[in-house]
Amino acid sequence: MKEQMQGYLTLVNDHLSLVCDRLLPARLPGPEGGPRECQVNQAARYSLLDGGKRIRGILVLAACELLGGDCRNALDFAAGVEMLHCYSLIHDDLPCMDNDDFRRGKPSCHKAFGEATALLAGDALQGAAFEAVVGAADKEGKALPAQYVVEAAKALGLAGGARGMVLGQELDLAYEGKNISREILESIHTHKTGALINGAVQMGAAAAGGSREDREILSRFAFTLGLVFQIVDDVLDVTSTEQELGKPIGSDLEQGKTTYITLLGEQGAMELARKLTQESCQELAQVYGAKADFLIWLAQSLLERRS
Amino acid sequence: MKEQMQGYLTLVNDHLSLVCDRLLPARLPGPEGGPRECQVNQAARYSLLDGGKRIRGILVLAACELLGGDCRNALDFAAGVEMLHCYSLIHDDLPCMDNDDFRRGKPSCHKAFGEATALLAGDALQGAAFEAVVGAADKEGKALPAQYVVEAAKALGLAGGARGMVLGQELDLAYEGKNISREILESIHTHKTGALINGAVQMGAAAAGGSREDREILSRFAFTLGLVFQIVDDVLDVTSTEQELGKPIGSDLEQGKTTYITLLGEQGAMELARKLTQESCQELAQVYGAKADFLIWLAQSLLERRS
Repeated sequence: MKEQMQGYLTLVNDHLSLVCDRLLPARLPGPEGGPRECQVNQAARYSLLDGGKRIRGILVLAACELLGGDCRNALDFAAGVEMLHCYSLIHDDLPCMDNDDFRRGKPSCHKAFGEATALLAGDALQGAAFEAVVGAADKEGKALPAQYVVEAAKALGLAGGARGMVLGQELDLAYEGKNISREILESIHTHKTGALINGAVQMGAAAAGGSREDREILSRFAFTLGLVFQIVDDVLDVTSTEQELGKPIGSDLEQGKTTYITLLGEQGAMELARKLTQESCQELAQVYGAKADFLIWLAQSLLERRS
Repeated sequence: MKEQMQGYLTLVNDHLSLVCDRLLPARLPGPEGGPRECQVNQAARYSLLDGGKRIRGILVLAACELLGGDCRNALDFAAGVEMLHCYSLIHDDLPCMDNDDFRRGKPSCHKAFGEATALLAGDALQGAAFEAVVGAADKEGKALPAQYVVEAAKALGLAGGARGMVLGQELDLAYEGKNISREILESIHTHKTGALINGAVQMGAAAAGGSREDREILSRFAFTLGLVFQIVDDVLDVTSTEQELGKPIGSDLEQGKTTYITLLGEQGAMELARKLTQESCQELAQVYGAKADFLIWLAQSLLERRS
């Protein structure tokens, strides 16, 4: 399974590079004659082409193959979801949002390129995400049917937009620093993380011409995966910070931020994550048999990850 | 012609309201049960549904009818281009960009809703623009062919993205306050304004199933229209400011901003605008005869406008 994961990762990264060169070229003919360095595109490439985990892109390919499609047909969709994810990180890091100076161990986009350029880089990446997706209808001899492409673009729009990820950002800001219930915490994660993970598998399903039932099963799997990802994040945040700082376990619990740890404790949170993963993988195995092996393995790895 | 203009305007505004209610609802079910006021969507609606001129939306419908299409088929595309235009205005007004406190006579989006919400409102509007466009493949009984929809989404992506409008913003920032040549000024306007006006007519052509030749003719018309629009803007900026402030004509010329006035003088600029409009309308009339009457009238009105 690890080789399959690596294979998907290479496919996604190679295709992202190609799509980037087409849609976000580092240099373009300038108005003064000769090539001109495009700051905005270079900022977008700095943030996009930096070796993220590409979970969302990999999910597009894996969902497509689960339903019997050729994952090479889904590469533009994988590039699109990674671009959309990347734009959200750049804008999320801006001073008026989370004001983060670092992202993935290097200066965040606005720290490296300035605020205006980072804002525009995020904007360009969102547009390029949709361009990448609709570009799948455009390959000579190996184009997807336009209807599949439209379905994928709709899924990306729903996932990333005002009823999906953007709403998650709004909820996150609205409840920041407040003591919140498990329902509210779950709603934040469902929108902020789950929606785009669901967008990924729905685009994979679109590339394979999946049925309505396929899409519903994948949707349940995706939202569970998103939630588990977030629970494990919460747990890792506490344990890794405490290990680094030599603090006693649990000392972060007082800082006012509601997480699955503050609600359920570390053990309770991990139990919930395991239970959700097990139920979700069971449904996948029942319906798709051995074809579901990779997605089940991926869900397990995300549950057991250490970083 | 004025009635036709008014008819298009009403169609665009009514459809924008409908699309907004679907994609950017002011209230959504909240995580605490019961409806929740969506700040981000309300900010987007504040900026979008405020009675702009809707030139871009009207151009979508008019280009569609020029090529024999039914303009009702192009309404989702018209909504999409207006949403994309609106997102660009919201982000353009942000403190890290032009830092404008007012837009169309009322507080700009971030002044009314705060920076984080305005940033997200722009983000949501860009996503919703593409959602609106691909939604045109989805109407029961009156859907456009998916291939037409894909063509329109591609045109919107190209127009708004890193090789279109966003590049125009970058060029504008890069040459800000510098003494620039006419070539550079034209390149800024071509990208910042022309690209999206071309996106509008290309989406209209897509809705009508226009030929490659149609698209090329419309492209020339659109870029000229965009340039003329900008030249007239420059002229109105100078004359209206001077009238308001009682300053002698020409006193703004020293402020270091290169415009068509500083390059050609007011008369020279208007002569250029008239010449460009005439040539461009001539081509349209030659190819499309009386069908081009509305677009020609629109170009003339934009040339002769007083505000």
